[in-house]
Amino acid sequence: MVTELIAVGTEILLGNIVNTNSAYLSEKCAELGLAVYYQSVVGDNPDRMKRVIKTALDRSDVIILTGGLGPTEDDLTKEITAEVMGFPLVEDLHTKELMEAYLKEYEKNHPQRRITKNNYKQTMVPKGSIVLDNHNGTAPGLIMEKKGKTAILLPGPPNEMVPMFEESVYPYLRKKQPEIIYSRMVKICGIGESQVAEEIQDLIEKQTNPTIAPYAKTGEVHLRITAKAEDEKKCKEMIKPIVHELKKRFGKDVFATKEEKTLEEAVVDLLKEKNMTLSLAESCTGGAVAARIVNVPGASEALMCGFVTYTNRAKRKCLGVKKSTLKNEGAVSAKCAKEMAKGGAKAAETDVCLSVTGLAGPGGGTEETPVGTVFMGCCCAGKTTTREFHFTGNRSRIRGQAVAQALTFIRDSLLECPSLRRATGILGFL
Amino acid sequence: MVTELIAVGTEILLGNIVNTNSAYLSEKCAELGLAVYYQSVVGDNPDRMKRVIKTALDRSDVIILTGGLGPTEDDLTKEITAEVMGFPLVEDLHTKELMEAYLKEYEKNHPQRRITKNNYKQTMVPKGSIVLDNHNGTAPGLIMEKKGKTAILLPGPPNEMVPMFEESVYPYLRKKQPEIIYSRMVKICGIGESQVAEEIQDLIEKQTNPTIAPYAKTGEVHLRITAKAEDEKKCKEMIKPIVHELKKRFGKDVFATKEEKTLEEAVVDLLKEKNMTLSLAESCTGGAVAARIVNVPGASEALMCGFVTYTNRAKRKCLGVKKSTLKNEGAVSAKCAKEMAKGGAKAAETDVCLSVTGLAGPGGGTEETPVGTVFMGCCCAGKTTTREFHFTGNRSRIRGQAVAQALTFIRDSLLECPSLRRATGILGFL
Repeated sequence: MVTELIAVGTEILLGNIVNTNSAYLSEKCAELGLAVYYQSVVGDNPDRMKRVIKTALDRSDVIILTGGLGPTEDDLTKEITAEVMGFPLVEDLHTKELMEAYLKEYEKNHPQRRITKNNYKQTMVPKGSIVLDNHNGTAPGLIMEKKGKTAILLPGPPNEMVPMFEESVYPYLRKKQPEIIYSRMVKICGIGESQVAEEIQDLIEKQTNPTIAPYAKTGEVHLRITAKAEDEKKCKEMIKPIVHELKKRFGKDVFATKEEKTLEEAVVDLLKEKNMTLSLAESCTGGAVAARIVNVPGASEALMCGFVTYTNRAKRKCLGVKKSTLKNEGAVSAKCAKEMAKGGAKAAETDVCLSVTGLAGPGGGTEETPVGTVFMGCCCAGKTTTREFHFTGNRSRIRGQAVAQALTFIRDSLLECPSLRRATGILGFL
Repeated sequence: MVTELIAVGTEILLGNIVNTNSAYLSEKCAELGLAVYYQSVVGDNPDRMKRVIKTALDRSDVIILTGGLGPTEDDLTKEITAEVMGFPLVEDLHTKELMEAYLKEYEKNHPQRRITKNNYKQTMVPKGSIVLDNHNGTAPGLIMEKKGKTAILLPGPPNEMVPMFEESVYPYLRKKQPEIIYSRMVKICGIGESQVAEEIQDLIEKQTNPTIAPYAKTGEVHLRITAKAEDEKKCKEMIKPIVHELKKRFGKDVFATKEEKTLEEAVVDLLKEKNMTLSLAESCTGGAVAARIVNVPGASEALMCGFVTYTNRAKRKCLGVKKSTLKNEGAVSAKCAKEMAKGGAKAAETDVCLSVTGLAGPGGGTEETPVGTVFMGCCCAGKTTTREFHFTGNRSRIRGQAVAQALTFIRDSLLECPSLRRATGILGFL
């Protein structure tokens, strides 16, 4: 089934935002075994949208449009698609109810805001279309089917689009597909993309079914193994030996073999399994490691406390870093990272404390300590080790890499930690 | 001059990589005053490429293609574009020389690799085209001009494409373009997209040049005002009264009138202006507010310290929240938020402390305190106020909204704060 992606939005054509929706949807389509031959981006212009939609419906079976479902007059995706496919618009009472409830709730929390007339534009839907509830905004998703062609309309903001796709569109497309496509993900941390690619080149070269596709994420590499067969059982049988082989080749660096398992989840699971508690002492990552850990529901069982000690004073006061260390070695040093980790574990009374101190730039770099230099310390059951990194890229890229490496460092330390018993005994007065 | 972007590459259609080239080129085109009406992505397939290139040359004056210039048989962009436009391919001796020098250097550093026959494919260029040297790889860029239409072919890897665009293509396009496009951004926080849209509907309805385009971000709305004129000065004159009018309508909710200024930057600027220091006491946002603030280069002058107090014990120990408050009101309460903010300001010895405590879900909701309930406290120069929110959506959406509202709350408190002098005097032993 040939599928085409159309992103609607002048902000993409102006380069204001990167079109991550199409990357997400392309990946999901590949997972579903749908062939994506084209992606397009068009602005909020009726004539040009009409032409793009017509062309897409001519050459593809399914078109997925994102964006342009908002309440403003610029938002025309629904109106134009319905016109091209010959659907009249009618009011949808269910959507109206949901929207009013959503807005009422919203108004309660934002007393200065009012429900505007504009929002009611969003309650009109193409007659006979499938309406997809939006739990994260007011614009419903829509599916229109006619003469063997399908148009799927989704809201543009990724935080509305992604949950709607997962909840409603994925199962819908799954059913349309006669052959079963089944895939599993092997997630690897601590090794770069090119090294991973090199180590599996022989597997990739001889692949037909199942296939292996590598996806590079910040600090992680994901390998998707996809099999096509008559049923799920057969697919699983085909995938099993490949997963086994990958686990053999990458050993402990495989942190997950499930799609939905994140690196932070692997860390939290390991902490719970070992019955150990964690604290964090972050400087250049400024709370971003803590924020990743808190992503995991129920993280509070493992993460006791986080310190964002961005200044030297805070490093001294909260973590007990020595004045002499800051003076002689500087805040961006292995010694400082070590003292931060030890001090954090002591202050928070946890079994493990991970520290990060570095230079994310853009300013402040010297020849000795260039921008991108990051030191980390991990105090685990009383033993503290440090690691030194030299990341490249801009501030946000450096911090992103640091966060991923921090999680990997915690994981490695836990894996190496010989003892499963509580190292520091019962928590004190924390 | 209408410009169209075509990215060639199956890896984009599979979602393996995000199409950042198009975002970069779109932004540059907007800067050059070139109207980009369409972006497309097509795979390495001759028929489909031919169709996409023909359509693009029909409806646009300039087409910019990226990718598919490599040495493998899959790389067909040059061959297909030359065929569609009717250019024969001839060997280019200058390119051949450059390529041989580049590869010799490369082989020296990568002894395991060899120059392959394939590479010589890259020395063939369309007869009469402009050849652009590639200082970061072997594929030259190409410009073909015929019957008022221009095709610009650039290599796919961003580290080759971007320098080539800046060095050769930008000045080339600059000369072709008589008119200038200039835009400014007005950024608003604390009001929703639909309310903003309604309040400027009259302006949007009568717009021609300059135009106003709203962009919704989490907790923010951005309005882009774009003018077209013979020079930048004229553009600025046309934009000025609109910016003035928007500032009048949205008052203090306008936090920036510059493209690159973020909400966290506005907060940090205000802190520096008032010579005040900030600390954070985060529970459900788990360090994400701190991470946003640390986004700002030089934030260390204002942000003293952040506490991620995810557990009740940490709230008591680090922030001095009373046991009775946690017992009687619970951690997700206005009273707890207030004590966290006051306690944080005291512990970190800062002028301002913002606290966040709430329920991001998915579990833990009750009838009284449903998922999405978030309390914030802001202690500013000794005065502590609280706010209550009921956000909707999944865990990450709730946290995203909470972070934006936290920044808005700090900003509002600073704006309302009557005194500019330091409230707590010189910092103590922090």
